[in-house]
Amino acid sequence: MRVTLLQYTPEPERTAAAAARLCYSPVGAETIKERMTDEQAHRFLAKIVSTGHYSTMEHVSFTFAIEGVSRVLTHQLVRHRIASYSQQSQRYVKEHDFEYIVPPSVVGNPEARRKFEQLMREVRRTYDELVALGVHQEDARYVLANATETKIVVTMNARSLLHFFTLRCCNRAQWEIRDLAREMVRQVREVAPTLFKQAGPACLLGPCPEGTMTCGKSAEMREAYLESKG
Amino acid sequence: MRVTLLQYTPEPERTAAAAARLCYSPVGAETIKERMTDEQAHRFLAKIVSTGHYSTMEHVSFTFAIEGVSRVLTHQLVRHRIASYSQQSQRYVKEHDFEYIVPPSVVGNPEARRKFEQLMREVRRTYDELVALGVHQEDARYVLANATETKIVVTMNARSLLHFFTLRCCNRAQWEIRDLAREMVRQVREVAPTLFKQAGPACLLGPCPEGTMTCGKSAEMREAYLESKG
Amino acid sequence: MRVTLLQYTPEPERTAAAAARLCYSPVGAETIKERMTDEQAHRFLAKIVSTGHYSTMEHVSFTFAIEGVSRVLTHQLVRHRIASYSQQSQRYVKEHDFEYIVPPSVVGNPEARRKFEQLMREVRRTYDELVALGVHQEDARYVLANATETKIVVTMNARSLLHFFTLRCCNRAQWEIRDLAREMVRQVREVAPTLFKQAGPACLLGPCPEGTMTCGKSAEMREAYLESKG
Amino acid sequence: MRVTLLQYTPEPERTAAAAARLCYSPVGAETIKERMTDEQAHRFLAKIVSTGHYSTMEHVSFTFAIEGVSRVLTHQLVRHRIASYSQQSQRYVKEHDFEYIVPPSVVGNPEARRKFEQLMREVRRTYDELVALGVHQEDARYVLANATETKIVVTMNARSLLHFFTLRCCNRAQWEIRDLAREMVRQVREVAPTLFKQAGPACLLGPCPEGTMTCGKSAEMREAYLESKG
Repeated sequence: MRVTLLQYTPEPERTAAAAARLCYSPVGAETIKERMTDEQAHRFLAKIVSTGHYSTMEHVSFTFAIEGVSRVLTHQLVRHRIASYSQQSQRYVKEHDFEYIVPPSVVGNPEARRKFEQLMREVRRTYDELVALGVHQEDARYVLANATETKIVVTMNARSLLHFFTLRCCNRAQWEIRDLAREMVRQVREVAPTLFKQAGPACLLGPCPEGTMTCGKSAEMREAYLESKG
Repeated sequence: MRVTLLQYTPEPERTAAAAARLCYSPVGAETIKERMTDEQAHRFLAKIVSTGHYSTMEHVSFTFAIEGVSRVLTHQLVRHRIASYSQQSQRYVKEHDFEYIVPPSVVGNPEARRKFEQLMREVRRTYDELVALGVHQEDARYVLANATETKIVVTMNARSLLHFFTLRCCNRAQWEIRDLAREMVRQVREVAPTLFKQAGPACLLGPCPEGTMTCGKSAEMREAYLESKG
Repeated sequence: MRVTLLQYTPEPERTAAAAARLCYSPVGAETIKERMTDEQAHRFLAKIVSTGHYSTMEHVSFTFAIEGVSRVLTHQLVRHRIASYSQQSQRYVKEHDFEYIVPPSVVGNPEARRKFEQLMREVRRTYDELVALGVHQEDARYVLANATETKIVVTMNARSLLHFFTLRCCNRAQWEIRDLAREMVRQVREVAPTLFKQAGPACLLGPCPEGTMTCGKSAEMREAYLESKG
Repeated sequence: MRVTLLQYTPEPERTAAAAARLCYSPVGAETIKERMTDEQAHRFLAKIVSTGHYSTMEHVSFTFAIEGVSRVLTHQLVRHRIASYSQQSQRYVKEHDFEYIVPPSVVGNPEARRKFEQLMREVRRTYDELVALGVHQEDARYVLANATETKIVVTMNARSLLHFFTLRCCNRAQWEIRDLAREMVRQVREVAPTLFKQAGPACLLGPCPEGTMTCGKSAEMREAYLESKG
């Protein structure tokens, strides 16, 4: 998995703070933007974050290129609707040399791994044979596995990201999208530490919402995510 | 593919017409709803549809159960964000007896079909072997094919449906989602003929937007979709 | 304020339950819809509601006609973006005989009320004079007050409604939109009691999110909303 | 009206082009981002824009501070739901010294202007009297006029902006929001000329959608917007 923070709204924390501030201030936009110190922006934003007034956070967006992930992951990812996606299509891209994602539980089980990889070779062979028999690649792709590697570019604003993290950093989330979510938390915190101070699973801020299905590790999670804030 | 119109806003055309009408009328909601004749609703709605004031159409929604489709289809479908989805998860459902969708181009090519079905048997065997080796089904599913059958419930309002039809009834849309879109057009027209009078590919109402990639069959499309209106 | 539940997805609770159920069931949509008893639907839905799996609730929508409210209210209402609106326009409707909403705090203060109503008469006179002087009504309306009565039709799905209630049933919400939210809770509970069992301000389900601004009446609120469930 | 482009996604055109390109390319995100020349980005984007594949444009966002506008404008603006807003609240801000917007048709009509301004003085006096009589400002604001000046920060992605321009640059749009839309077109074109090459009313790209209500000036509009592209 390669996750690249391709682009984001410049000065994300000053921007979110200035947007909120403008609404309560008698001075104009230009003045606020220029005169607000980093310290002022930080204090103002910390207050907004702690009181849960998240709408201000929508003014800043983050664009990630995500490569080396399976279509299991992307099928889950694109269910998040307050976001924008550009995904590599299997309809137009030849998949002869497709790579695939092997789950860690399979990597760590030699017999399972051997069977998994053997099947992937069968899939590749059949794909090639179907194309050789005149089947168009848009139909040949029906044989490709969920494990097939894909790429996707995703843009979310900070509020939508926080919601995404709440659901997908959870220990009960599927491992691949959880790995993605955690890496995204790490990267956005580097550029907007105050904005994403409380980013992480739901249990960071309140009781575990999973009920009887809880992993029972809220304390460890809080420590891990609070520690990593630096 | 089995498409069932599970539920929809009652009296969809009267509802859309009443919502629009209320805004321009001195009388109240109850009165409008009771007194508007079907003929009045029809005329009012026909005018709205023809002038492209689609926001009124958002007040009526349609819920479909879609079964016997591949994950190729659902991965495309869920990209439509102004909609609600409930999809069968491969994470919790055992896929031992999974069914799969065979593209018509493969069905019509005996040699390709033989190879396709043989691979599907290999997939099923490997899935079972992985589970027998202790791999959890949420990881075993990485070997499942795009062709694997799934089910999904989708709700869209009439405006979102019209947009969906514009893109997915097009001859250049992928065959499986196009089959779905056409069946959905057929079913919504039965219960809301005026609302969906112009439902269909983009070329029904204007020039083909596909440029040099056009199928060149706008005339046939217009005839097919206008004919089918009854 | 007159709030009319104009229309809603039929059998809202069975529909939400059937949508969820289909995804976990080997039998088809038709069968589930027909065979599910009310008791089964109720139990299944109660479980969904209590575990916070709200996506299923998006499959059912509710359409309200709201009359006799001010533009203060509608300006707040339309900020809820996961919803559909049709609003009476001041651009095309002559406002000579406009009505206006008087806040209870003004109604209860005779001197304030006198001044309020006197100003409203001035507004009406000026509006008429501007129109008589050749100013088009789309510009004359600039003098109309926030208090001016308007009408709006709104459609939200059950999930979006629950979120709306969380924010707007709160004692700290502005009185007019709070009155609206409470009336909407009352009406949707009549037709979908299980779905909206926990509908109400945020403090029904957890700690008050208003921090130092809390009204301090969480206990009363819980009682009021739980009592009213019948 | 003061419109300030507070912030936007850096290198908007390269970003949109890179997002699209990544999906069709065997090389990785970092490489594409670094190696794509401005000329390549421009050509690639021009092709995307001309074929109407707008989803790529969602990856870039623009944040505007809008000051000196009326609540007539903001009530219309916030109806655009694929956007983020932070608006000055009349609930918490004292409106004693509120400014107001005078429509040009009133400015140009001395008698109308005199009556308009006289009423605004009455409004201010009544507002102050109500507050002095103990009415809280959240209720006193009910007397404030639509003309009252407000501020709002809005963020939209490029696709949503293009749609906004289509509707609001139209000669039939209300004058104040049309002025805003035109100023926004001017500003985004300075930083992303290719992305917004076809930004403007619907009649730039096809027949006027207003039917019998058309302004009949499509030719002038095309010239004005194409000229201004430089």
